[in-house]
Amino acid sequence: MVLVQGELMRSEFRRILIRNGFTEEKADICAGIFMMNTLDGISSHGVNRFPRFVEYITKGIVNPDAEPSLISSSAAVEHWDGNLGPGPLNALKATQRATELASLHGIGMVTLRHTNHWMRGGTYGWNAAGKGFAFLGWTNTMANMPAWGAKDCRIGNNPLVFAMPFREEAIVLDFAMSQYSYGKLEVYKLAGEKLPYPGGFDSHGNLTDDPSEILLTWRALPIGYWKGSGLSLMLDIFAASLSGGLSTSEISQKDAECSLSQVFIAISMKSLPVGRDFQETINNIITDLKKSDPVVPGNEPRYPGENTVRLRNKNLSEGIPVNEEVWDYILSL
Amino acid sequence: MVLVQGELMRSEFRRILIRNGFTEEKADICAGIFMMNTLDGISSHGVNRFPRFVEYITKGIVNPDAEPSLISSSAAVEHWDGNLGPGPLNALKATQRATELASLHGIGMVTLRHTNHWMRGGTYGWNAAGKGFAFLGWTNTMANMPAWGAKDCRIGNNPLVFAMPFREEAIVLDFAMSQYSYGKLEVYKLAGEKLPYPGGFDSHGNLTDDPSEILLTWRALPIGYWKGSGLSLMLDIFAASLSGGLSTSEISQKDAECSLSQVFIAISMKSLPVGRDFQETINNIITDLKKSDPVVPGNEPRYPGENTVRLRNKNLSEGIPVNEEVWDYILSL
Repeated sequence: MVLVQGELMRSEFRRILIRNGFTEEKADICAGIFMMNTLDGISSHGVNRFPRFVEYITKGIVNPDAEPSLISSSAAVEHWDGNLGPGPLNALKATQRATELASLHGIGMVTLRHTNHWMRGGTYGWNAAGKGFAFLGWTNTMANMPAWGAKDCRIGNNPLVFAMPFREEAIVLDFAMSQYSYGKLEVYKLAGEKLPYPGGFDSHGNLTDDPSEILLTWRALPIGYWKGSGLSLMLDIFAASLSGGLSTSEISQKDAECSLSQVFIAISMKSLPVGRDFQETINNIITDLKKSDPVVPGNEPRYPGENTVRLRNKNLSEGIPVNEEVWDYILSL
Repeated sequence: MVLVQGELMRSEFRRILIRNGFTEEKADICAGIFMMNTLDGISSHGVNRFPRFVEYITKGIVNPDAEPSLISSSAAVEHWDGNLGPGPLNALKATQRATELASLHGIGMVTLRHTNHWMRGGTYGWNAAGKGFAFLGWTNTMANMPAWGAKDCRIGNNPLVFAMPFREEAIVLDFAMSQYSYGKLEVYKLAGEKLPYPGGFDSHGNLTDDPSEILLTWRALPIGYWKGSGLSLMLDIFAASLSGGLSTSEISQKDAECSLSQVFIAISMKSLPVGRDFQETINNIITDLKKSDPVVPGNEPRYPGENTVRLRNKNLSEGIPVNEEVWDYILSL
């Protein structure tokens, strides 16, 4: 591991993106997103993912020149086409429009079709909540998990994001429908460790906490067994049918994961019923959560995003830990 | 078990509700909801729950005279107060308003505070989808599950509903954040059976599939471990802060579960991007799901609500199986 300052990382990403056809403005924003994801501890969708993002540009899967275009609108709803441009830029634009619509109509929804991987869903939750909006959004993905009762991968892990402004920061929940990502299973396998909780099925069809077994069967566990399987399906149904874009099964027929469908819903917090400050409501909820009797003494339950802010501040002051090989490769790009 | 015809059940519910202070119109609607929930196989929020509903009216927890009132509105958003009236009537009204707002604005959101238990969340999904709208809604509940990493119950199982029109019917996902309800744990315990999958923690803090152990510790498992715990918290945060109503922790301080907070979001399917019929998109998704290689040969994965329609039709033609003691008690009311 090397420690890399956030600003240095951002400027390296920026340099590489400009070299790969991004305008300065787009490179600024996109580099900022990849850096922030890493700063927040999500290297899998930050520095570790950046080389693949560049590769997708080189291969023409991600088109740096493409701009999202408005297909149609209806008061509080807008439908956009991502035109296979950079996923994070398309998603940020969609988030921005959703918040603008919410300012006008109380709630706003933007759908995005033919876009690319948005990297970390939380990015858009932090963005909207940082501007004072409640946010709800999701993406579909290629098929990477069997439906409940099936052995072959036909549903996506379709990450879902909820975000709410809180104190100076936000509460942001960003989670995939699979219990563990394949990346996480690889990490446990390489470390020779079992999963903390069962995460899939072995070749005998039994639940297992052995990552190697799951990587063999590719039968990753949906969260909550049949419940997460159903939720994954619904998120795909909503994303594809509302946007008029591709579904998980259609995306899976492509050579690479691209042309995704996404939904962004923002809610204004400026026109809530009078009589109760919503920050006080949330504060009460978090205060009560912290009164929990912890399983491990001293380890109170955390709220979604609590650790993120802690890690962000730590990495801001100390530098971001990065795999040396990955960082060397990025410097060479 | 006795077999009871749906129409007979509805008219008995109607009679009892009128005797307990409901107007004919309200009794019609409310009896229909309890009957339909039973017809769809959800007796726990239908016939088996009806006596407790009547008891709550008798005790003054549910006020049959109360009407929901509009607190404030802002274009596509309306905030209502349930005034502690019958939960199913309040929730149906909120669903109705959300679809009306969606017709006008593309998307509509209604929040409801100080309402009572809505019984089956799916009711409102079937209703909205039946009228051609996509639907997304949830309720908070009293605390009935420990947060991840905690031993005492401080979060709710906060059911979440997604619904989408499909063919002549709908796809409706309606699920709580706990893996199994306490009612379901009781059923397995009484039958002397283990749970099909781990559903909570035993007194040693280990995951267990023994329902008796979980009923002792009251440590029911959130779906997806920490993920469902986070989602439960977010749904409570959204419901309480958007509605200006009570949170799970505040509801839990009451003698009975009442004064809940709920969110209803409807989306118009009439202003989607041209070029692709959304029914065709959904049809493709379901067709692909059905191509899955099933774990049990012949048992293809089902989509949410698929079994409901099957059971509904069966119960419509054959009568609804009801516990004889429960039915006798209802006839005596």
